[in-house]
Amino acid sequence: MIKIVVDAMGGDNSPVVNVKGAVSALKEIDDLQVVLVGDEAQLQPLLDTESYDKSRLEVLHAPDVISCNDKPTEAIKNKKDSSMSKAFELLRSDSEARAMVSIGSTGALLAGTVLRVGRIRGVKRPAFCPILPTVVPNKIVSICDSGANVDCDALYLQQFAVMGSLYLNKAFGIENPRVALLNIGVEEEKGDAMTKEAYELLKNTASINFVGNMEARDLLKGEVDLVVCDGFSGNVLLKSTEGTCIELMRLIKNAMKSSFKSKIGALLVKSKLYEIKDLMDYNNYGGAVLLGAAKTVVKGHGSSNETAIYNCIKQAYTMEKNELITAIAEEIRLASEVSNL
Amino acid sequence: MIKIVVDAMGGDNSPVVNVKGAVSALKEIDDLQVVLVGDEAQLQPLLDTESYDKSRLEVLHAPDVISCNDKPTEAIKNKKDSSMSKAFELLRSDSEARAMVSIGSTGALLAGTVLRVGRIRGVKRPAFCPILPTVVPNKIVSICDSGANVDCDALYLQQFAVMGSLYLNKAFGIENPRVALLNIGVEEEKGDAMTKEAYELLKNTASINFVGNMEARDLLKGEVDLVVCDGFSGNVLLKSTEGTCIELMRLIKNAMKSSFKSKIGALLVKSKLYEIKDLMDYNNYGGAVLLGAAKTVVKGHGSSNETAIYNCIKQAYTMEKNELITAIAEEIRLASEVSNL
Repeated sequence: MIKIVVDAMGGDNSPVVNVKGAVSALKEIDDLQVVLVGDEAQLQPLLDTESYDKSRLEVLHAPDVISCNDKPTEAIKNKKDSSMSKAFELLRSDSEARAMVSIGSTGALLAGTVLRVGRIRGVKRPAFCPILPTVVPNKIVSICDSGANVDCDALYLQQFAVMGSLYLNKAFGIENPRVALLNIGVEEEKGDAMTKEAYELLKNTASINFVGNMEARDLLKGEVDLVVCDGFSGNVLLKSTEGTCIELMRLIKNAMKSSFKSKIGALLVKSKLYEIKDLMDYNNYGGAVLLGAAKTVVKGHGSSNETAIYNCIKQAYTMEKNELITAIAEEIRLASEVSNL
Repeated sequence: MIKIVVDAMGGDNSPVVNVKGAVSALKEIDDLQVVLVGDEAQLQPLLDTESYDKSRLEVLHAPDVISCNDKPTEAIKNKKDSSMSKAFELLRSDSEARAMVSIGSTGALLAGTVLRVGRIRGVKRPAFCPILPTVVPNKIVSICDSGANVDCDALYLQQFAVMGSLYLNKAFGIENPRVALLNIGVEEEKGDAMTKEAYELLKNTASINFVGNMEARDLLKGEVDLVVCDGFSGNVLLKSTEGTCIELMRLIKNAMKSSFKSKIGALLVKSKLYEIKDLMDYNNYGGAVLLGAAKTVVKGHGSSNETAIYNCIKQAYTMEKNELITAIAEEIRLASEVSNL
C-alpha cells in the first residue's frame, strides 16, 4: 500500500476538485491510500456524495489555509492549523506517508519541503521540475530548475540533470532522456560563467544523455526531454512560454469573434482548436515535483481541475512505486564518489 | 542631411531586400543619405532597376561577407573586406556617418560595435534592445538587455533602464515609458541577489518611470513599455516568446489543414489569422538597437524583408534626428553625479 497525503485546500477550486481527484485515483489504483488534509466540515459533505473504498481514505482535519499572500516561511512556521502545515507534519512524522500532493502556494510548498521534509543526502538544493507539453503529440518536456533556486552554481545544475533524468525515466518511462543546457546559443562556448562551467560538468557526467546547449526558442519542438538551468532563467522560460500561449490563444479567440464570416469559420475549426488547447493544457500532464526532497512532493497548478489532481496523485504514486528517491540517492552518491564533489 | 551606412549583405535575402529597403527609405525621407556597403557586382544591377535620387546614395564596394558561422571578434578583425567590417570602418572614420543598419551576424555586430565604435562616455556596457509587438494593437514592448551581456551587475541594469527609456521616447514617441524589472514574482523581495539590488537602484532612479517587478508571463500584455534584465534571462525571454508564437501558429495551421471541415473553416478565418500574424510580425517593428554605443547601430532580423529594412533605416534616422545619443550621454552623466557611480 502506498500512502499519499493530499492537501485538500489552497487551490482556486479547492476542496471540490481535490476530493473528486482523490476519489478517482482511489478507484483507479488498488494499492493507493489517501489522507485528505483540510476543513472536515467542507470535506465530509463532498465525500458523502461519492462512492469509494472507505478503508483507503481518511480525513485529517485542518481548519486553516495558507494563501498565496502569506509569506511562505512564516506561514509554514506559524499557521500550524493550515492544511499544508498539517500535511507536511504528517509527511514528516508518519514513516508510512510517502508522498504529498498540493495545489496551494508554491512558495509555502518549497519552504515546507525545506523545513519539514529535508533533502536527500548529498543533494545540494531541491529543484522545481514541471512538465510541459510540446507540439509533438505525446512528447513532454521538463525544466529543472524552474524557480526554486534563483542563485545557482554549476554543481547544482549537474545534480538537476541527474535527478531530472531519473525522474523522467521513473515517472514517465522515458528511456535515456535527452538533457540540454539552456543557453543563449547552441555553440559550446556560449553563455555566462556559470553556464560554461555547467556545460563542462554535464559533458563529463556519464549517467546522463547530454545533447548540448539549447536556445529558449526550441523548447516546444519536442527535441529534448529535460532542460537544465538556474531557477531564475528557468522561471522566465516556463512563464514566458505559458504566457505567450495564453495571450496568443486569447487573441485568436477574439479575432474569430470579430466578424460574421469568421464566426462561421470558427465553428468549423473549433474542434481542431480544442485539440490544440487540450494538447497545451497542463491539467493533462501532472504537476511539478520538488526533486531532491527526501520525500516525494508534487505541486499542481493553482487552477487545477479534478483531472489535474488525479494526474498529480497518480504521478506521485508512480514515483513511489518506481522508488525514484532511492534511485536519486544512489546516483548522487555515485556521482559524488566519481567527481569528489 | 543624415548619413546612414547600410550593410547590404549577410541576411537571408540580401542584398535584394537591403537595396529595395534603402531605396524606399530614400523616397520617403528627404534629408536621408545612404551608403550601401557590399559587393558592387551584385548591388549595381539591382540599383539599376530602381529609380531614386542618385545624389543621396552611394555604394562602397566590399567583396566579402561575414557569416553566422564566423567567430565574431575574429571575423571583424580579419575579414577586412567584408561588408560589415567596411561598414564599421566607415562609421568609425567618417564623422558624417551617423548610424549603421545591418541584418548580418548578431555576434559580429556586437563585436564590431565594441571594437570599432566604442561606448558613450560613462556607459558601462552597450545592451541589445529589441522591439516586440504586444496583444494590444499599436503597443510595443522592449527588452533590455536581450543578450549582449550575459554577466551583469545591478548598475548595468540601472543604465539599461535609463537608456531604454530615452530610446523608447526618442525613437517611438512613448511618453514616460513604464519600466519593469524582470523577476520570478511581482513582490519587491523576489529574485536573485543581483535582481534585488537592481530593484533598489531602479526605485531610486528619478529619471525613469519604474513600475516594479514583472513576471515573464506578462510580457505581451502591453502593460509595460520596457523590461530590464540581464542579457541571459533577457535572451531566454525574447527567444521563448518568439519560439512559442512560431510553434503555436504552425500547430494551428497544420490542425486546420487536417480535415475537410476545418479546411473550409480555415478559409473563412484566414484573414483574421493573417491580421494576427501581421500583428506579431517583427518585420513591421524595426530592429534591435545596441544602446550605449557611441554611434547608432540597428540590427534587423536575419530573415528581414524589404519592409523590415526600410523600418530599420527609418528607426536609425529617427534616433539620429532626435539626438538620442546626446540625450543618453547627458542622462548618464547626471545619474553618475547623483549616485556617484
